[in-house]
Amino acid sequence: MTEYSIGVDLGGTNLRAAAIDEDGRMLEKIAGSTHLSAGREAVLDDMVRAIVELRERFKGHRLAGVGIGVPGFILVDDGLIVGSPNLPDFENYPVRDEIEKRLGTPVILENDANSAALGEKWMGAGRDVNDLVLLTLGTGIGGGVIHGGKVLHGFVGMGGELGHITVNPTGNPCGCGNRGCLEKHASATALVAMAKLLSLGGPDITAAGIYDLAVAGNTKARMIFETMGEALGIALANLVNIFNFPLYLLSGGPLPAWDFFAPRMLAEVERRSFAYRNTKTRIARAELGNEAGLYGAACLPLKFQHAHH
Amino acid sequence: MTEYSIGVDLGGTNLRAAAIDEDGRMLEKIAGSTHLSAGREAVLDDMVRAIVELRERFKGHRLAGVGIGVPGFILVDDGLIVGSPNLPDFENYPVRDEIEKRLGTPVILENDANSAALGEKWMGAGRDVNDLVLLTLGTGIGGGVIHGGKVLHGFVGMGGELGHITVNPTGNPCGCGNRGCLEKHASATALVAMAKLLSLGGPDITAAGIYDLAVAGNTKARMIFETMGEALGIALANLVNIFNFPLYLLSGGPLPAWDFFAPRMLAEVERRSFAYRNTKTRIARAELGNEAGLYGAACLPLKFQHAHH
Repeated sequence: MTEYSIGVDLGGTNLRAAAIDEDGRMLEKIAGSTHLSAGREAVLDDMVRAIVELRERFKGHRLAGVGIGVPGFILVDDGLIVGSPNLPDFENYPVRDEIEKRLGTPVILENDANSAALGEKWMGAGRDVNDLVLLTLGTGIGGGVIHGGKVLHGFVGMGGELGHITVNPTGNPCGCGNRGCLEKHASATALVAMAKLLSLGGPDITAAGIYDLAVAGNTKARMIFETMGEALGIALANLVNIFNFPLYLLSGGPLPAWDFFAPRMLAEVERRSFAYRNTKTRIARAELGNEAGLYGAACLPLKFQHAHH
Repeated sequence: MTEYSIGVDLGGTNLRAAAIDEDGRMLEKIAGSTHLSAGREAVLDDMVRAIVELRERFKGHRLAGVGIGVPGFILVDDGLIVGSPNLPDFENYPVRDEIEKRLGTPVILENDANSAALGEKWMGAGRDVNDLVLLTLGTGIGGGVIHGGKVLHGFVGMGGELGHITVNPTGNPCGCGNRGCLEKHASATALVAMAKLLSLGGPDITAAGIYDLAVAGNTKARMIFETMGEALGIALANLVNIFNFPLYLLSGGPLPAWDFFAPRMLAEVERRSFAYRNTKTRIARAELGNEAGLYGAACLPLKFQHAHH
């Protein structure tokens, strides 16, 4: 290898970092927890320590830079997190410049779902296309749009908020102020909320538990996944009509339940999109799992480094 | 001027062509009707005659090429109209290559709403931005997305079908197979359909007639525009959440009714989009009216000419 970079995935729960070479080979990965309760400085120290450890390990090779994926609304050009329910201590803190100062190497900040979409484009299910959309299904639903091989940022970096597409104008209220957001009808959290409404399982029911019940033939559990599929199908049909991209990917915890939600999802897209019916549009599973964000973050300094100072 | 091009707007009703110089000055315009009943050859002859007339008028100057905006689904790279309810005779006919052969000059084919969006970006309300979305309100609703100064085509050119965004999953059935498409709730046609449902005006009521009634204080007419505003607001909130672009434009016949539909539209976007509330996103009237498509079509050979052979 002649060059490598370090990708970081700073989540509300997990802090991970990986050294990845220019050909997309993961050289080494460090996985730990995000100790939010210890405060912002402690998290920054952990992050810097992981990066330095990887850099030491591969010294002698050229480090292109560091990419960091974070949950929340970010201002890309400013390297600033402006809103992040999962990382409140980092809101309006100049995280990019601070890490850059401590490391003396270029740092690029990116939204975590955008990073994951870029990772899938670089080394995952989107290798063969330049345009794709990724939906990450988890506590909420994140989204990333890749156009011409690059993240579609919008004018301050808030593009791709696909979890807040309205799938039902009078649907469930969302923390964002809207009603009927996709993530209120198709995230892991939404699955659990539906289970509780239907008195399915105990008070500690999880998305995985609902999946087990569906496998066992439980009608309510299967209905929940149908409802999820319907919501995803409405959102995906909108995305197909808007973008006419060749590829739409899904990732996240509920993916094992594909056979329970995907048929309804695909039927909805089929019905609601002329472009889908008339083009070779693929809707498929992402391939890199929770490592997509690491690949995408590492990809940033390798492929898209530009002076921001 | 050192260079000019010719933009053509081939609609189901009107056939127009204009010579526009590289600085966006309209030098001359020819406006006529599309004689569909006379057959495809007659329409092609009319189109070629208009272009040749303009070319003769400005001979001595360099003609960059010809851009043609047409309604319907097109394959951009193939220069082919694959589906067009308004120009059925042209479906799957190699219109670009045929015109090119007859003229001996490069021709670029584009969807009419995409052309209009590009025109607004070049010389209209979007002059100062590189990213915008245009919704054209008419019999249906067309859409155009400009990203990085260029039309977002998607992989075969069917991107920007914004009239088919679902604003109500159980809403009015649409010819595209979906229910609750934006254009079934906010186009001029939808306004008339609502008026008939509400027994407003006579059997020949038009969108303009509904507007007159709203001006006169008619409650039903005002409710119709509120309903239109709600549908537009849901669709625009989706677009803001997806793109985070700085500018969203509306054009078309119902624009004079702005004061009746826009307050509700903007309130819906405000409620349904975090990105809208937290960024300087503008939703505004387009400026070029029905000449936007001519500017955009003329812009294509001037700015985006590339060999397609």
